Amino acid sequence: MYATMIWEKGELAVLDQTKLPEKTVYITCDTSRRVKEAIQKLEVRGAPAIGAAAAFAMVMGAEEVAGSNFLEKLAKVRDDLISARPTAVNLAWACHKLYNIAATAEPSLTFDILIKRMEDAAYKIYNDDIRTNKKMGEYGAELLPHNAKVITHCNAGALATCGWGTALGVIRSAHKQGKISMVYADETRPLLQGARLTVYELLKEKIPVTLITDSMAAWTIRQKGIDCAVVGADRIALNGDTANKIGTYGLALACRAQGIPFYIAAPSSTFDFTAQSAKDIPIELRDGEEIKRIGEKLITPAEVQTYNPSFDITPAELIAGIITEFGVLKPPFGESIAQMRAKMP
Amino acid sequence: MYATMIWEKGELAVLDQTKLPEKTVYITCDTSRRVKEAIQKLEVRGAPAIGAAAAFAMVMGAEEVAGSNFLEKLAKVRDDLISARPTAVNLAWACHKLYNIAATAEPSLTFDILIKRMEDAAYKIYNDDIRTNKKMGEYGAELLPHNAKVITHCNAGALATCGWGTALGVIRSAHKQGKISMVYADETRPLLQGARLTVYELLKEKIPVTLITDSMAAWTIRQKGIDCAVVGADRIALNGDTANKIGTYGLALACRAQGIPFYIAAPSSTFDFTAQSAKDIPIELRDGEEIKRIGEKLITPAEVQTYNPSFDITPAELIAGIITEFGVLKPPFGESIAQMRAKMP
Repeated sequence: MYATMIWEKGELAVLDQTKLPEKTVYITCDTSRRVKEAIQKLEVRGAPAIGAAAAFAMVMGAEEVAGSNFLEKLAKVRDDLISARPTAVNLAWACHKLYNIAATAEPSLTFDILIKRMEDAAYKIYNDDIRTNKKMGEYGAELLPHNAKVITHCNAGALATCGWGTALGVIRSAHKQGKISMVYADETRPLLQGARLTVYELLKEKIPVTLITDSMAAWTIRQKGIDCAVVGADRIALNGDTANKIGTYGLALACRAQGIPFYIAAPSSTFDFTAQSAKDIPIELRDGEEIKRIGEKLITPAEVQTYNPSFDITPAELIAGIITEFGVLKPPFGESIAQMRAKMP
Repeated sequence: MYATMIWEKGELAVLDQTKLPEKTVYITCDTSRRVKEAIQKLEVRGAPAIGAAAAFAMVMGAEEVAGSNFLEKLAKVRDDLISARPTAVNLAWACHKLYNIAATAEPSLTFDILIKRMEDAAYKIYNDDIRTNKKMGEYGAELLPHNAKVITHCNAGALATCGWGTALGVIRSAHKQGKISMVYADETRPLLQGARLTVYELLKEKIPVTLITDSMAAWTIRQKGIDCAVVGADRIALNGDTANKIGTYGLALACRAQGIPFYIAAPSSTFDFTAQSAKDIPIELRDGEEIKRIGEKLITPAEVQTYNPSFDITPAELIAGIITEFGVLKPPFGESIAQMRAKMP
């Protein structure tokens, strides 16, 4: 598997996920603004990966604004980065974390030392993410039956994280234990992260995968005797309501109709402890051209109006469990999320 | 609106629906086998349109096999045509209807007169379909509230029929009455009949339309306050279980979750009075290349396995009403379908 991002000599190289699986190209981001652009264009994507990329961008930003009125300028860099995409909360989480290192540093610290400290923190976010994913993988794999048929949506894999993956991390861990019979991957329109990225990751590791269109999920669950769904998340509210890639809510409804469990796999950094429920989660609306074109090709009359929400929210009552690095949270989520929070450092 | 098919001098010109909306091209079918090919390739598609095209193909077939062992040979033509696609029952319905004209004709009849009689019957299927659609449009429009926001899947429009449309016929009739505020059209992967054909039809008649991906349907129903769904059908069993384009079942689940009615619009020729329920309806599996490519472009690693059912079955309990030319059938469908059948000639 290729690294999602590589930090070297103050620059961040990100694997361009818009070009996969056709081409494996890294984009060198030499400014914090270029990282912001990479996040906006989905060149780097997936809530945990966005968080780590933004952390490194904060290090670059600190270099860029080192000097007078440092904290004020760094706050602007932070807010500008956070504005890149509204739904994935890991982005704001990482930016605030890095900013707070600067804001709480001893005033006597030189910029060199402060920036080194921030760089260490960014590395820690990156490395913790991989460790966290592997823990989630272990907890999640226990939930799957033997010869499991699992369905997933979008890409919550190594490419969406710093390695291993959240939902695909669970599947990877279960596969290592010989428990996976088949993974059904929704193609995930409009940007086809399932067809392009999830299929690519699973084929690379010889994990059995079958590609379907999003519209086939409900019927496939029924016809193929799928055991459960596992997906990632972009933001989870205190009551368990979960924002994830558009189409997740429909998949959760299909699981309920068939009576199979629907699981979320997400690290604690994806929880928004200021959001009470769905109503506090902003949903990103993206350019309709994403629907009207596939690659360059126009697939509909050019003048048609579109509606293109990038995420939807699955109500907590459709979720059987949330797989975190602290274990599997079960309903009622108000309680289990509070218990996890109490364990967090 | 362009005609879906034109019968002239013993040849059937079909509007090539695989090329729309980019190109408006008619394919001249001069043999019954070429019509079969057009049905298989989805150049002509939509249950009622397939029925009418097959009726004209039976006329061609009768010309082709006129001579000794006529009925035996015509039965082969019939069975070959029926084998083109397994799910839409209108195909078998029309082929049997045309065959029976030959089978029950007076033995003294010349082939010329018999073929003329079959041609009249094919025309009648064609013309009845338009009349039928308009009646369904009137009945269906009554179900919609004022300023209705309606969602539809695939294309059950003029292009799927001999004119006017089933589900889009209801929407057209309601639009004439000033009742339509917005139609949300699912793009309908893999072959994009929604993005290509439904959008094209509605824009042409200035009926307000918003294109979404299939994965957005559940969330859009919730966010946009959609009032109901109206879709077509390919085969309806005696208990009301309904086969329609893949993705319909998921849409019906989304409607139930939001508590809005889910309607089917289909003529009586779409009912299979030999099918007790879903278990008696065959589901066509099509080539996985349809999922792996959009147009010519490969969107996933070429070696991936796929599952490509062309239809799914919506269980009767998710359906609020079936709009037919005999009125709106309501649950329990076992009874209302039997009542409709009693009224049929």
